[in-house]
Amino acid sequence: MSSIILLLVEDDNNLKNLLEMALQDEGFEVVLANSGKKAIAKLDADGAQFMGLITDIRLGTGPDGWAVGHRAREVFSGIPVVYMSGDSAHEWSANGVPESVMLQKPFVMGQLVTAITTLLNQASSATALVDAMRHDRNTKPKG
Amino acid sequence: MSSIILLLVEDDNNLKNLLEMALQDEGFEVVLANSGKKAIAKLDADGAQFMGLITDIRLGTGPDGWAVGHRAREVFSGIPVVYMSGDSAHEWSANGVPESVMLQKPFVMGQLVTAITTLLNQASSATALVDAMRHDRNTKPKG
Amino acid sequence: MSSIILLLVEDDNNLKNLLEMALQDEGFEVVLANSGKKAIAKLDADGAQFMGLITDIRLGTGPDGWAVGHRAREVFSGIPVVYMSGDSAHEWSANGVPESVMLQKPFVMGQLVTAITTLLNQASSATALVDAMRHDRNTKPKG
Amino acid sequence: MSSIILLLVEDDNNLKNLLEMALQDEGFEVVLANSGKKAIAKLDADGAQFMGLITDIRLGTGPDGWAVGHRAREVFSGIPVVYMSGDSAHEWSANGVPESVMLQKPFVMGQLVTAITTLLNQASSATALVDAMRHDRNTKPKG
Amino acid sequence: MSSIILLLVEDDNNLKNLLEMALQDEGFEVVLANSGKKAIAKLDADGAQFMGLITDIRLGTGPDGWAVGHRAREVFSGIPVVYMSGDSAHEWSANGVPESVMLQKPFVMGQLVTAITTLLNQASSATALVDAMRHDRNTKPKG
Amino acid sequence: MSSIILLLVEDDNNLKNLLEMALQDEGFEVVLANSGKKAIAKLDADGAQFMGLITDIRLGTGPDGWAVGHRAREVFSGIPVVYMSGDSAHEWSANGVPESVMLQKPFVMGQLVTAITTLLNQASSATALVDAMRHDRNTKPKG
Repeated sequence: MSSIILLLVEDDNNLKNLLEMALQDEGFEVVLANSGKKAIAKLDADGAQFMGLITDIRLGTGPDGWAVGHRAREVFSGIPVVYMSGDSAHEWSANGVPESVMLQKPFVMGQLVTAITTLLNQASSATALVDAMRHDRNTKPKG
Repeated sequence: MSSIILLLVEDDNNLKNLLEMALQDEGFEVVLANSGKKAIAKLDADGAQFMGLITDIRLGTGPDGWAVGHRAREVFSGIPVVYMSGDSAHEWSANGVPESVMLQKPFVMGQLVTAITTLLNQASSATALVDAMRHDRNTKPKG
Repeated sequence: MSSIILLLVEDDNNLKNLLEMALQDEGFEVVLANSGKKAIAKLDADGAQFMGLITDIRLGTGPDGWAVGHRAREVFSGIPVVYMSGDSAHEWSANGVPESVMLQKPFVMGQLVTAITTLLNQASSATALVDAMRHDRNTKPKG
Repeated sequence: MSSIILLLVEDDNNLKNLLEMALQDEGFEVVLANSGKKAIAKLDADGAQFMGLITDIRLGTGPDGWAVGHRAREVFSGIPVVYMSGDSAHEWSANGVPESVMLQKPFVMGQLVTAITTLLNQASSATALVDAMRHDRNTKPKG
Repeated sequence: MSSIILLLVEDDNNLKNLLEMALQDEGFEVVLANSGKKAIAKLDADGAQFMGLITDIRLGTGPDGWAVGHRAREVFSGIPVVYMSGDSAHEWSANGVPESVMLQKPFVMGQLVTAITTLLNQASSATALVDAMRHDRNTKPKG
Repeated sequence: MSSIILLLVEDDNNLKNLLEMALQDEGFEVVLANSGKKAIAKLDADGAQFMGLITDIRLGTGPDGWAVGHRAREVFSGIPVVYMSGDSAHEWSANGVPESVMLQKPFVMGQLVTAITTLLNQASSATALVDAMRHDRNTKPKG
């Protein structure tokens, strides 16, 4: 099977490596961005390649994780989004996007894997309905 | 606002009238079919007008409610479906469609109203995502 | 259709009347108990008649609403349970039963109706599966 | 019981009246704002009085419904939010807040009532847990 | 503990081996069928041994995955069902069974594991209620 | 990241070791108790350290798993709870706590991991809202 590419946005190098390895162990292909600016550039250049977004909130100067989440949904409206944060989780209810998951640090890698696979599976069923609708329009004779 | 049209399939005249009145009281427009054959004819002729299907299972001779549910989803893949039955509910797990509701008789009208409005609201959010995807394709410049 | 009987447990006379009328307006038949002791006596005498339980928490002397909820589930394990309370809602996480709803006062009657009809609809689908299992055992030849 | 106050934001006078009546029929108290600016002013002046927000998206000049939703959650993080829109629903996935409902026009009043009562009931259970946590901190002896 | 047996239906040999290994790594016992006909024969011979069904849709000549899903639910009404497909996912809304999961290819093995374990856990709680109901009937004195 | 500590209550030594290893493999830190009495002592001494409870039901003499679950929720109202049982699952509907999971034996370790990580992720989002509410009270000027 071809690959499932996730965009991982994290500016802490140690944590970035741990997360990348855990996701690769699950069979995901991971594209890294260590700032909000670089993440948004990747989304603008070729956002359609990403099947999911996993983003830290505090990302130094420039756009934060909330801004990355909003841009990802503008580029690909149904993309699964998982936020990770230690001290910014309380901003999620006002700044997160619908049907996202807020993971508070600390967490074990299994929580991240369950979060992203659960969202991907829900999107898979929802997209099945979308594909059915497209199929209807292309193949059905006009009443 | 324009109307929300439901297809109601029921061959018991007394129950049909009770259901129709309860749904009209809620502001729905109701199209009636008193057999599976007539229901399928309406779906084939102009299925796109219906925002939801409410169907009894046992419908005398001809197609039963399970067949009507399958045909409705072939015509309009995301249509909300509510089944009503006294003695056929045990067939739902094998013959129902995904994300439908099985109402066992007896029930109060409020249960039917909650069932169909909850499914319509879920479809509304899901369709919002579908519309966003269509919008993306029509308005975005190529990368 | 035959009736759907709810057990309503409330010791405040004014509130009891308001709740009873709202539930009767929806087509439910309501059996009243104004103490935990009387509620448990009704459950022990003929608990199988009740399709749902709606109970206040503080009920004067004798068993409280938590005790009534536990007894109802012992008598009929799948019964929908809605708790109502002003100042005891914080005890729900330790004393409530699984898949119940905790309504905090004040609430509008529409919230109570949505709570009980949603639980009844979920139970209806779940019971459809139970009935299917029973049907399997009774009608299938041994492998 | 005391009242449940909802903030309703709608600039179409006819629709506003229909919505207000439907919500008042359910027993809600309704505070109206016919622009995003007025809605935000009410949230800033006394946001804690509102148990829920129901807002149109397109509101003429000034802040739109997405901005009102964000402000409401900044003021009261757990407030239920229902958006209504005809042509802006496709923006929900990027601009809505978590655990909100997107109602596409046209809809029947029963859909709005189910949407807001379902969110209020979910918030009631969630707040019960919050209250329990507060109770823990205030009443438990240290270690 | 004794084993959890899953029926895996897949006619692509390479994919079949990958799926089998991933499921065995999780501790599942896997029974394989490389056609719809063989899958249905296994369900008819001893369907009660299977705790879950994982099936591809396109299976060469003979019954497809939709037919296998329906037969599985006729034999054991509460069995968890996961469908996998590349190009037939748009048929799920009309041909799938209730409370199933539609996994679109490509997917990572972690998605399949999350899908089947989530369904098994939901079935475990639901079956707990079923067992309680059976227990009621067997052990309680007649009112 | 700092550790996530789970309280595991199991009196069968072989099973206890299997469960402990599976949870440690996921990165959890596990505190063991081989009786209900010891589990409750640990909850009373320092319950706030535990992010989740996993408990068998039958635990020899002394408090059973239901009693441990209730005590855990009294100490920390939002704690995720997973029950495991072979023959006592039918008591869950009357004796379990709200929003818990009932795992019936036999199960694979992946089911336990999915159960606890799913509950932890739900608690993470819910706690994010709680934190937001606390933040509101501490940082906002009076209207």
